[in-house]
Amino acid sequence: MSELTSVSQAEALIAEHMPSFGSERVPLDVATGRVLRQSVRAEHDHPPFDRVMMDGIATRWSEAMPRRLHIAGAQMAGMRRQALPAGDACLEVTTGAMLPEGCDCVIPIEQLQRDGEDYVLSVDCQPLAGQFIHRRASDCAEGTLLLSSGMRLGPAEMALLAANGVANVEVAVMPSVAIVSTGDELVNVDEPLGEGQIRRSNDTAVRSALQLDGLARVAMEHIVDDEAATRDRIADLLDRHDVLLLSGGVSMGQRDYVPAALAAQGVQKVFHRIAQKPGKPMWFGIGPRGQVVFALPGNPVSALVCATRYARPALLMAQGMLAPAREYVVLDAEVDIHPMLVSFMPARVQTDAQGRLMAYPVPSKTSGDFSSLPRTQGFVQLPPGKGKAPAGSVAAFYRW
Amino acid sequence: MSELTSVSQAEALIAEHMPSFGSERVPLDVATGRVLRQSVRAEHDHPPFDRVMMDGIATRWSEAMPRRLHIAGAQMAGMRRQALPAGDACLEVTTGAMLPEGCDCVIPIEQLQRDGEDYVLSVDCQPLAGQFIHRRASDCAEGTLLLSSGMRLGPAEMALLAANGVANVEVAVMPSVAIVSTGDELVNVDEPLGEGQIRRSNDTAVRSALQLDGLARVAMEHIVDDEAATRDRIADLLDRHDVLLLSGGVSMGQRDYVPAALAAQGVQKVFHRIAQKPGKPMWFGIGPRGQVVFALPGNPVSALVCATRYARPALLMAQGMLAPAREYVVLDAEVDIHPMLVSFMPARVQTDAQGRLMAYPVPSKTSGDFSSLPRTQGFVQLPPGKGKAPAGSVAAFYRW
Repeated sequence: MSELTSVSQAEALIAEHMPSFGSERVPLDVATGRVLRQSVRAEHDHPPFDRVMMDGIATRWSEAMPRRLHIAGAQMAGMRRQALPAGDACLEVTTGAMLPEGCDCVIPIEQLQRDGEDYVLSVDCQPLAGQFIHRRASDCAEGTLLLSSGMRLGPAEMALLAANGVANVEVAVMPSVAIVSTGDELVNVDEPLGEGQIRRSNDTAVRSALQLDGLARVAMEHIVDDEAATRDRIADLLDRHDVLLLSGGVSMGQRDYVPAALAAQGVQKVFHRIAQKPGKPMWFGIGPRGQVVFALPGNPVSALVCATRYARPALLMAQGMLAPAREYVVLDAEVDIHPMLVSFMPARVQTDAQGRLMAYPVPSKTSGDFSSLPRTQGFVQLPPGKGKAPAGSVAAFYRW
Repeated sequence: MSELTSVSQAEALIAEHMPSFGSERVPLDVATGRVLRQSVRAEHDHPPFDRVMMDGIATRWSEAMPRRLHIAGAQMAGMRRQALPAGDACLEVTTGAMLPEGCDCVIPIEQLQRDGEDYVLSVDCQPLAGQFIHRRASDCAEGTLLLSSGMRLGPAEMALLAANGVANVEVAVMPSVAIVSTGDELVNVDEPLGEGQIRRSNDTAVRSALQLDGLARVAMEHIVDDEAATRDRIADLLDRHDVLLLSGGVSMGQRDYVPAALAAQGVQKVFHRIAQKPGKPMWFGIGPRGQVVFALPGNPVSALVCATRYARPALLMAQGMLAPAREYVVLDAEVDIHPMLVSFMPARVQTDAQGRLMAYPVPSKTSGDFSSLPRTQGFVQLPPGKGKAPAGSVAAFYRW
């Protein structure tokens, strides 16, 4: 086993070799899910003025304030600031309006009766000084750091970008990825299936996973078992893409022309074979322009496990994303482990009534069986050891 | 408080009034994230033939099998089935090939030496009958139910669709949604900010949330405070969309022309005001053609909480999605709760070393403060009660 790379070594080697893909400015409507590559500070105080919080009136508070107030005008949301005249006066206000000059109390419409050009306070209305006023800068002051490089843009981050005038936001460029399958036995989903053939599915699964990560520039290519065609297509794909994900692996088979085609383009092996099950045959290399080549194993479960455990996080981290916290789960049932290899076991996860994240292992019938994967959310990672990982033990979990 | 709708009543009333949006067939490249609206059975046995699992040779096993085998031909992946001749013969095979007729043992290339037109087994090679053969139907038999209506299509589901020849898949039609903001105080992200104005941001946040749910047909509209314009725009939007999400709420203010415009189009109120904090002013109604109208509160935290707690799940369930398991978290710190209202508290969540999903509350400084939301993943839901929910208690969690 000495020639196998460990799971943590493989992770570190990939991280070390990943290039940066640069950054670009995009409008907000296409920014969700992207990795932020700038910091964002408050454009102004939030709120930028003393802001009325209720529909009603604004007036001046005093301990012995009048119960009848003359309507001297209106301060609607969006209007420039008005001033309250002297005397027993008020201004009509709407939620979101500036607090008029000279006012320090807002009384909601529900506590008022209109009487001609006056408002009369309800009997049980006991206004307090400063009530229903959202004070300038009480959320945050101008210049406050709100967002930092490396955050992924979700609804809350998008709200802050919009609220602070960032109409075009600096985000990481998404790599251009080609998912490449090889092999004469593989038939497209819409073609008739001949004797000895199966349908391609790993490429569809991996594309779907990358789509969930927001990667939009994903091409799919199939290369037939022909030496010249393989050489030409690999050369062209390495020219046009940042990342190649080979979904059929790199084997020792005499009809596997991929290793020679990669070598002819100057792609250097970084590692081949990881001390893990499934997914041992995984291969990783780097091209002369920093192109990244992941060769995922051909077995469907292995391909999806390796894409999820290595390729997807690497593509996000290369965009500058801050590493998310690792998830830990409690095994609901014992799981067979391997004496020398890290085991990946697909599992359904769900929190129990104690807030524990429980993992219910869903073993495959065979190494090629992916029919049970839809009942799972990902897989647990179990270190090598004798016998079994007992029920109740804690393990790291990786989501599809 | 008697006129308030409870959180669970609000959920039930929304579910009861949501229309179905129908289904449609889409190609696989745009199917990720969609809700499946058909069942999928195995197109054929998986694998469809006895399948070679290693590059090497296939031969006939016996207790006293020869150590030298003549190469009688090759059975490559994708080829029609060959037959092994009589005598001390073998066929070269590659991973994924059909097992040739007359063979019941595959020997990997690593355990063989080539000698002219023969292969010689290595000294330590002790082949077993049936080894390295992935038997027909061992993953699953033709006709096995693999996917059911209501599943959301992720990488594993996509792999099964592709592997079983479903080139175009029946999925729920996504509703067409208009996010509508109102108010003269609201300025677009790329416009200069005048006195008394703030930038629109709720609509951007809600659009981002819907985009994360895969909803592609989302329009944004802003309506100024004008009675005729509001009436015309609301009528047009109800004509063209299945769902309206009003991001500024429905108020009692005299300049709020939205309630009258909705009523003029026959939109009936289902409920107004929920016994919750924040988000009490939420309004929900149904138009004459089954159009759904959510009026989210104007406060940014409230708007995002209500979109997440009510609108997003309702739009997914209306597509026929099976309800996901509820998440439960353990409070890391005590949280103030309200005596009569359900409290929603934004929180960061992370599993601890015991596999417990811990929630670290992130209170807002004010009801309008959304600057701390990027540090959170969602919010806990706490029932009404006296005092505080203590550290260590378990609560339901909803992710942004």
